[in-house]
Amino acid sequence: MPNPTAAMIVIGDEILSGRTRDSNAHHLANELTLVGIDLREVRFIADDHEGIVAAVNALRGAHDHVFTSGGIGPTHDDITADAVAAAFGVPIDVRADAAALLGAHYERTGREFNDSRKRMARIPDTAVLIDNPVSIAPGFTLGNVHVMAGVPDVFQAMLAGVLAPLAKGAPLLSQTLRVERGEGDIAAPFGALAAEFPDLSMGSYPFVLNGAVGTNLVIRGTDAARVNAAMARLADLFPG
Amino acid sequence: MPNPTAAMIVIGDEILSGRTRDSNAHHLANELTLVGIDLREVRFIADDHEGIVAAVNALRGAHDHVFTSGGIGPTHDDITADAVAAAFGVPIDVRADAAALLGAHYERTGREFNDSRKRMARIPDTAVLIDNPVSIAPGFTLGNVHVMAGVPDVFQAMLAGVLAPLAKGAPLLSQTLRVERGEGDIAAPFGALAAEFPDLSMGSYPFVLNGAVGTNLVIRGTDAARVNAAMARLADLFPG
Repeated sequence: MPNPTAAMIVIGDEILSGRTRDSNAHHLANELTLVGIDLREVRFIADDHEGIVAAVNALRGAHDHVFTSGGIGPTHDDITADAVAAAFGVPIDVRADAAALLGAHYERTGREFNDSRKRMARIPDTAVLIDNPVSIAPGFTLGNVHVMAGVPDVFQAMLAGVLAPLAKGAPLLSQTLRVERGEGDIAAPFGALAAEFPDLSMGSYPFVLNGAVGTNLVIRGTDAARVNAAMARLADLFPG
Repeated sequence: MPNPTAAMIVIGDEILSGRTRDSNAHHLANELTLVGIDLREVRFIADDHEGIVAAVNALRGAHDHVFTSGGIGPTHDDITADAVAAAFGVPIDVRADAAALLGAHYERTGREFNDSRKRMARIPDTAVLIDNPVSIAPGFTLGNVHVMAGVPDVFQAMLAGVLAPLAKGAPLLSQTLRVERGEGDIAAPFGALAAEFPDLSMGSYPFVLNGAVGTNLVIRGTDAARVNAAMARLADLFPG
């Protein structure tokens, strides 16, 4: 059975302006690789209602899962929850379960549960809350779309909770052979090997270290025996 | 006149598998902000012909510029040039100008200009070469699509050459006020200020430092006087 597929939407003007360097996409890529869910596409988009609606609707039909990060805080630029609700055509308002979590948190910490903070309890009807063990304000899963915070430690904590119960695939295994030769010297035999193993993905990544040119040859696949067989052939082609 | 707009396509299985963390999108975001070209969207996609064709065609009609990184080397997984040519319906083959550059380079360095390396001279008809001062193999501009290498120092050198002659817009100016309060405390007055300055983009980015909660309030816009006016109001709202 093929692995489940996924896409990610990273939402925020601060990413597109260069103010903030996203780290959530790289984290998600690594986590999904470990559990055998194939990440097929990532989009960085702006804090724009119509843009978020369009991206959610373009990707949720094409993949088993869509993960979003960013735009679920208490300020005016946090518009992700409303946009995702609109993409599904589902009503959204302050929801009792989320408000109860947040209300108790602010009571414990002696802060006012004001209207801005209540914005973080806006959850679409029928969505399932995503636990936020870091800062309480929940994310949510609506259909196959998992809506999470942009702050990296909150995103990571939410993702761990989301991934735990999901159906997993075969983890993507990866092995690397480092050769002290340029890509142009290894391309022909490496390409021929790739053609012999069409079920595997083979990539070459050049590097320059202390002025010397080299290439990392990477073989990826979900079947350990096939990856091992291809690596053995690769080691024969390019003996140390 | 509104600023030119742009999108980016980052191409490579190694990004989506988490093996490599992309840095080119963040670099491009910063460079475009400096020259007043608005980066509206970034997509990370796989080394897949149809996927590249679809992304190029979706974005090149919607933006003034599309920048790509990755997939223009000599190995079998380097398929970007052919896919971009297909997206435009333009023939592609080893082109004399690119072959001359590469042939001279390999002659100088005593390496064979073999068939794999000739793959890097595959350039679509009518495309304009992009100079590669780092490792010679050129990128190209076809229509409004600028095709560049994925290796970060090569990408950066190519981008500098591409941006130099482009029509620029008004640089996006950005100012930040750091407040030692949580987002929930500042959201209402900050949102009201944003509503007063609809021509500016205002964002709030929470942080935790040594256990204390704070928020960076960022105001962005192309008109320095307006940004300054909004910052003055912000400083009044949240005095140090």
